[in-house]
Amino acid sequence: MIPRYARPEMTAIWDQQTKYRIWFEIEAHAADAMARLGIVPKEAAETIWAKGKDAEFDVARIDEIEAETKHDVIAFLTHLAEIVGPEARFVHQGLTSSDVLDTTLAVQLSRATDILIGGVDRVLAALKARAFEHKTTPTVGRSHGIHAEPMTFGLKLAGYYAEFDRAKRRLLAAKDEIATCALSGAVGTFANVDPSVEAYVAEKMGLQPEPVSTQVIPRDRHAAYFAALGVVASSVERLAVEVRHLQRTEVREAQEFFGKGQKGSSAMPHKRNPILTENLTGLARLVRMAVVPAMENVALWHERDISHSSVERGIGPDSTIHLDFALHRLAGVVEKLVVYPERMQANLDALGGLVFSQRVLLALTQAGASREDGYRLVQRNAMKVWDEGASFLSALCSDDEVTALLPPSEIEPLFDLSYHTKHVDTVFERVFGAA
Amino acid sequence: MIPRYARPEMTAIWDQQTKYRIWFEIEAHAADAMARLGIVPKEAAETIWAKGKDAEFDVARIDEIEAETKHDVIAFLTHLAEIVGPEARFVHQGLTSSDVLDTTLAVQLSRATDILIGGVDRVLAALKARAFEHKTTPTVGRSHGIHAEPMTFGLKLAGYYAEFDRAKRRLLAAKDEIATCALSGAVGTFANVDPSVEAYVAEKMGLQPEPVSTQVIPRDRHAAYFAALGVVASSVERLAVEVRHLQRTEVREAQEFFGKGQKGSSAMPHKRNPILTENLTGLARLVRMAVVPAMENVALWHERDISHSSVERGIGPDSTIHLDFALHRLAGVVEKLVVYPERMQANLDALGGLVFSQRVLLALTQAGASREDGYRLVQRNAMKVWDEGASFLSALCSDDEVTALLPPSEIEPLFDLSYHTKHVDTVFERVFGAA
Amino acid sequence: MIPRYARPEMTAIWDQQTKYRIWFEIEAHAADAMARLGIVPKEAAETIWAKGKDAEFDVARIDEIEAETKHDVIAFLTHLAEIVGPEARFVHQGLTSSDVLDTTLAVQLSRATDILIGGVDRVLAALKARAFEHKTTPTVGRSHGIHAEPMTFGLKLAGYYAEFDRAKRRLLAAKDEIATCALSGAVGTFANVDPSVEAYVAEKMGLQPEPVSTQVIPRDRHAAYFAALGVVASSVERLAVEVRHLQRTEVREAQEFFGKGQKGSSAMPHKRNPILTENLTGLARLVRMAVVPAMENVALWHERDISHSSVERGIGPDSTIHLDFALHRLAGVVEKLVVYPERMQANLDALGGLVFSQRVLLALTQAGASREDGYRLVQRNAMKVWDEGASFLSALCSDDEVTALLPPSEIEPLFDLSYHTKHVDTVFERVFGAA
Amino acid sequence: MIPRYARPEMTAIWDQQTKYRIWFEIEAHAADAMARLGIVPKEAAETIWAKGKDAEFDVARIDEIEAETKHDVIAFLTHLAEIVGPEARFVHQGLTSSDVLDTTLAVQLSRATDILIGGVDRVLAALKARAFEHKTTPTVGRSHGIHAEPMTFGLKLAGYYAEFDRAKRRLLAAKDEIATCALSGAVGTFANVDPSVEAYVAEKMGLQPEPVSTQVIPRDRHAAYFAALGVVASSVERLAVEVRHLQRTEVREAQEFFGKGQKGSSAMPHKRNPILTENLTGLARLVRMAVVPAMENVALWHERDISHSSVERGIGPDSTIHLDFALHRLAGVVEKLVVYPERMQANLDALGGLVFSQRVLLALTQAGASREDGYRLVQRNAMKVWDEGASFLSALCSDDEVTALLPPSEIEPLFDLSYHTKHVDTVFERVFGAA
Repeated sequence: MIPRYARPEMTAIWDQQTKYRIWFEIEAHAADAMARLGIVPKEAAETIWAKGKDAEFDVARIDEIEAETKHDVIAFLTHLAEIVGPEARFVHQGLTSSDVLDTTLAVQLSRATDILIGGVDRVLAALKARAFEHKTTPTVGRSHGIHAEPMTFGLKLAGYYAEFDRAKRRLLAAKDEIATCALSGAVGTFANVDPSVEAYVAEKMGLQPEPVSTQVIPRDRHAAYFAALGVVASSVERLAVEVRHLQRTEVREAQEFFGKGQKGSSAMPHKRNPILTENLTGLARLVRMAVVPAMENVALWHERDISHSSVERGIGPDSTIHLDFALHRLAGVVEKLVVYPERMQANLDALGGLVFSQRVLLALTQAGASREDGYRLVQRNAMKVWDEGASFLSALCSDDEVTALLPPSEIEPLFDLSYHTKHVDTVFERVFGAA
Repeated sequence: MIPRYARPEMTAIWDQQTKYRIWFEIEAHAADAMARLGIVPKEAAETIWAKGKDAEFDVARIDEIEAETKHDVIAFLTHLAEIVGPEARFVHQGLTSSDVLDTTLAVQLSRATDILIGGVDRVLAALKARAFEHKTTPTVGRSHGIHAEPMTFGLKLAGYYAEFDRAKRRLLAAKDEIATCALSGAVGTFANVDPSVEAYVAEKMGLQPEPVSTQVIPRDRHAAYFAALGVVASSVERLAVEVRHLQRTEVREAQEFFGKGQKGSSAMPHKRNPILTENLTGLARLVRMAVVPAMENVALWHERDISHSSVERGIGPDSTIHLDFALHRLAGVVEKLVVYPERMQANLDALGGLVFSQRVLLALTQAGASREDGYRLVQRNAMKVWDEGASFLSALCSDDEVTALLPPSEIEPLFDLSYHTKHVDTVFERVFGAA
Repeated sequence: MIPRYARPEMTAIWDQQTKYRIWFEIEAHAADAMARLGIVPKEAAETIWAKGKDAEFDVARIDEIEAETKHDVIAFLTHLAEIVGPEARFVHQGLTSSDVLDTTLAVQLSRATDILIGGVDRVLAALKARAFEHKTTPTVGRSHGIHAEPMTFGLKLAGYYAEFDRAKRRLLAAKDEIATCALSGAVGTFANVDPSVEAYVAEKMGLQPEPVSTQVIPRDRHAAYFAALGVVASSVERLAVEVRHLQRTEVREAQEFFGKGQKGSSAMPHKRNPILTENLTGLARLVRMAVVPAMENVALWHERDISHSSVERGIGPDSTIHLDFALHRLAGVVEKLVVYPERMQANLDALGGLVFSQRVLLALTQAGASREDGYRLVQRNAMKVWDEGASFLSALCSDDEVTALLPPSEIEPLFDLSYHTKHVDTVFERVFGAA
Repeated sequence: MIPRYARPEMTAIWDQQTKYRIWFEIEAHAADAMARLGIVPKEAAETIWAKGKDAEFDVARIDEIEAETKHDVIAFLTHLAEIVGPEARFVHQGLTSSDVLDTTLAVQLSRATDILIGGVDRVLAALKARAFEHKTTPTVGRSHGIHAEPMTFGLKLAGYYAEFDRAKRRLLAAKDEIATCALSGAVGTFANVDPSVEAYVAEKMGLQPEPVSTQVIPRDRHAAYFAALGVVASSVERLAVEVRHLQRTEVREAQEFFGKGQKGSSAMPHKRNPILTENLTGLARLVRMAVVPAMENVALWHERDISHSSVERGIGPDSTIHLDFALHRLAGVVEKLVVYPERMQANLDALGGLVFSQRVLLALTQAGASREDGYRLVQRNAMKVWDEGASFLSALCSDDEVTALLPPSEIEPLFDLSYHTKHVDTVFERVFGAA
């Protein structure tokens, strides 16, 4: 985890104290459930809660014990026994470490996902606001980096809104995947722990019982989870790359907010660089890199091996923390994006109307030309614009083969922006719902 | 695509003729929709259908045209004009190549997903049948490759069933992600094609209209799709690795069916190797390798660039074809798996009852020992079994510290298999529903 | 393998006939070596060569036999026996299938690497020619997509030359990694085949003997090989992305050659898109996707399992074929790249001299300003250019704080292109050697 | 970076203080070089060294400045100015941040590689010692997890030695890739910094000058570097998986050292799990996950963008730290591995001589049988061993078709271990050199 790309709200989920707190809660809830079954004395369960509830766990002490036992959960339980006293022997009855560890990870990832969804919501709100603000701001649509046809900047943003709306649904589904509880004991047989204990703890911790756990919660769930994060990160990257393109010197249609006192380069004082979105591009790669190891983690040996553990100690915090940071950084970029409508218009006009070539082509075919002939006629005039800087309209109007089909008076009206923006309302309704 | 890992049902979706057929249908349905709007003459739309409906498209001819135009859709349309005649000029009105290509990919991936789901269903049926067959067959559960506690072979299979049930749900969700139609024209503005055309074609092709397309269907959908396939492949790998382990010479609890006439090795005639499941392990890697490039495809430039195309020409067919093959190969392995219950029992007995160590530990704590003391007592007797080959039961019964807490008469009943299988019914109900 | 991204020279290496031809040669050379040791009759070895040398192997027949034996090498040997006759029983003495398969893969990958190096050589030649052609063509250097300082287009190309020179060295090293021969028999003990046979066959096939093979050649070699290809593909991508940027409508400093008869878009006849370099971007992703599975292939079980095989059937041909195609496509793009020096100059001039900001800053510090003050002074004038479209030179000359340190007469000479190109010769010498 | 998988020697390279120390040294050496050229006053250069040499940099103060400037190098330089005083204005003359940052990364990765090579050396020493210790210890070689033929445990270890010897060479090559220095100024033109400054600093920092830098050191170098680490990690995984297999309960031929006081499971006191090698399997996945983003980092835009930076802030420390930890953990596992030769012998004997099947086959072909007939005869007797538990030798001796070719007296001597170990010396010489 890289501290400069972390927000405290998310890192808190992953700190040691939080982890031990969740461990404790699972053990204490399990003791309650066992007390109901008469397996554990009621007073013992109460004592566990009473002593442990507000305890600060001593991380250094736990590390010390682990150095000897080479086992983190045993180290914690030993430390807990120091806090709780003799009743501690009723803790962890019939459970395995994995029951605690996997259920804890489920809690952490669930909470992390809620925060991530909060981040997506902020991105969505920013995109929506800016989309409506620029609903009718004309801009050139580009395919292959080449001017294609007119559109509006709001339409562009609406597309990103729809994508982040999918991101939100993916995160909700990912949370469903991951939010399960396993307290099934060694190799998952419930030999030493009644299934009702699992059900009880699951409910208390806001999870669903895992239908079949094999001491571990099956890792296809985690693979699906981190894959979802990778897809969301890729959407972050797409919007980041868009902003980077818009801020290119030659394009300059939009720009990341540049703060007072900010310096763009140590050497070149004139620089305003899209460093936030470049950074987001890199963060997307970082988040995505969890996807493959999470999939490699699925094929554990038999009922479980522990090869997944070191991987998850890395990717669990790193992916959620960096994606969370990225979402908020992205939201900030969108919220404060400086937009230059006049530059958009200038770029739209730069090619002398070439962006209307399709409409001319269609008019020619409507006027009787074959598609192939129409294409040839339009293309040859368009190439003059590229190669000689001609005006597209003039070129067409002085091409006899063209005017034989379409008189200049019918060509000129084809160069009409509103023709291209007439369905912006339709798309906005699809994306944002009826006004 | 590797022909030996392909089934004709799936490869058919990806052959050239099928592709051109879908292209034609999209164009012809679009012409119908435009005819309704009066943009295209009704007779033209009818002629397009009449001439194209049963046409065999000439792949070599299309390739020839593409060699000149460097554009595959234009090449097809030119060829289609040769088939349809003059009315062909009403084909592709206001559409872009991407409208056709992306909608076609959606159709192909949707159909492929249906076939994949069929494969998962076959795996599920096989797992269910074998799980019930071996519901009570005792076997040792293993964690870390080390004997842990008893379970049943049916329980093991039930876990895989639950995982493939999730695989099915993931494929259904993946199909939803991918099954959208875009006929929005250049940069997605609907300038030259009415939104109702998209709606009409979508319905005809079994798809949903894409809320915002930008000439292309957004690639976060495809990233999510291939990620889902990667997760399913990882589940295939997990079951494959399980079989490979069970077939290890020292374990020999199960074995892939070995055909009459089959040879295990060119050099060593005694060999029966788990080659199908080793192959599945490799196929899982092949399918998974589509995940990262599919995510790299998301951040296209502005409204679209075409870098995704070459990637999808590879991973589209390859991933679906190889996963399909893998699912059917896996189903066959499960269906015909040779199971050796007597070897399972022998392995279960191999450590002289060590697999009951936890229950002894719990009995000691119930008898008043602290968790730490109980652990120490059980561990020291267990280590004698590992190091000296002792009988665990005898060792415990001759340990005074142990017998001071638990007399031998109370230790012996702890070595009881049925204690570990008592919740098999519970888990089966969770997985397969009430009997 | 995607046929449209394949050159026949490379695909030939991977066709069935070539594979069987190499299998035969390995077996026949091994028979020769065994004949020298007296293990196999000399006449038998001669007969094997005589009958097999010019034989066309019947792929369908081999497939048929494999359908029964489920073993490809045994199927081939059975077919070879049909060709060679009774002496065939001396073929494959003491060898395992892997001896043949792994050595064959080494031969194929070695040959493939030679062809790849040929592709890199073509790229290098094109880059060198264009670099010298544009050694002094002024262009703007960009960091973060933002104009930074002047450089020359030749210098830019020299950087790519240096990168492909490294690519060449990486391919040479990759070939060394992969070009080993193993004929060590079952589990690599040489029990049934003398080490001298391996040495003999290695030399004949142009390989080195593998120091320790364990029936298979260790897969860390292949992992290193495909990783090298992935790095080379990433270099292809970098140059491809550069061209795509240069061809952007707003930049238009260079353009892929656009053929007569070529069509850029089915809908918009005005389009000239950088489709070759976009395609190369996608091909880079395709080649790179072999890297992870090749690494996953390393940890085979014990002396070998066969999970690597299906992976290599895919990535072996695919990666080499697609990278080969990419290199030649890239070379073509560079060879025929249309360069617009006047557009480069226009872009360089677009910001009114802002690209000289660093030199002004340094002059101010030389004139006694602190770095921080100098920065502040330059930045505030630069921002006027961005925000108000001012001329940078005029702005500086009318800033009293600036002119207090540097009179206008000393500012003007700082706006000097040659200052930035004075070391082009130095860098060219580093890259291309002394003239 | 996961603290529990880190050694202080390696983490020290990556801490803030070390980083600022290297930044300072680069700036101070550059000032010296510029003083020689007369660009900077000699006294200024001396003052920079005098004040900065033993300075403790105030990380919190630098963070504070960065919070305003949003630029880490500027923040450091501002802080340095507070330490050095007015002469600080001669620091960083003509340099860009990237000159400092990229050269620093080169220094860090070079030093990290030296430490990694030290780790490999320790693994090599351990493997060599244990290989010679068990040079003649018989063990069964396995292909596909199935018993194949006899070998020795020392031979197995020799193979791993050869692999780690390659790992060492890969790390040496990776260091060569990465150990370059760039001080070429904005967009790499040396406009404001003489090439001799770069040469001077390179030598002082133990690096080579980068032939063409474009403000950044080209990222194909870093891609190659992290790919090399990924390959080494995969070799770690292979050996780890071997140990995990050997420790499986049913195999039990070797075992990780199990410390006094160690606990294998919180629930099952009998457990001794191969947790170190399972952990190494996971760490390999973690190290490998840097490979893809490092390749994605190559295609920076034009002369540079900064998307690589966040990625490298993660993978730079993480990959080197975790691989370093893994190498030392692995060395410890090998050094203290508990080997059970008697279990190896028992496993070797478990199948009643089936492991000699190839030699019987070869003897039959030498005796005149065709390869196909010999195979059939041996296979049918081998299958009796698998299916009925027969003795292979007895089965063969009572098969009339077999004895018609080979009398029992000639069959028995074929069951000879030494036949399989006769070339162990040859292989040891190849790997370890002449004794």
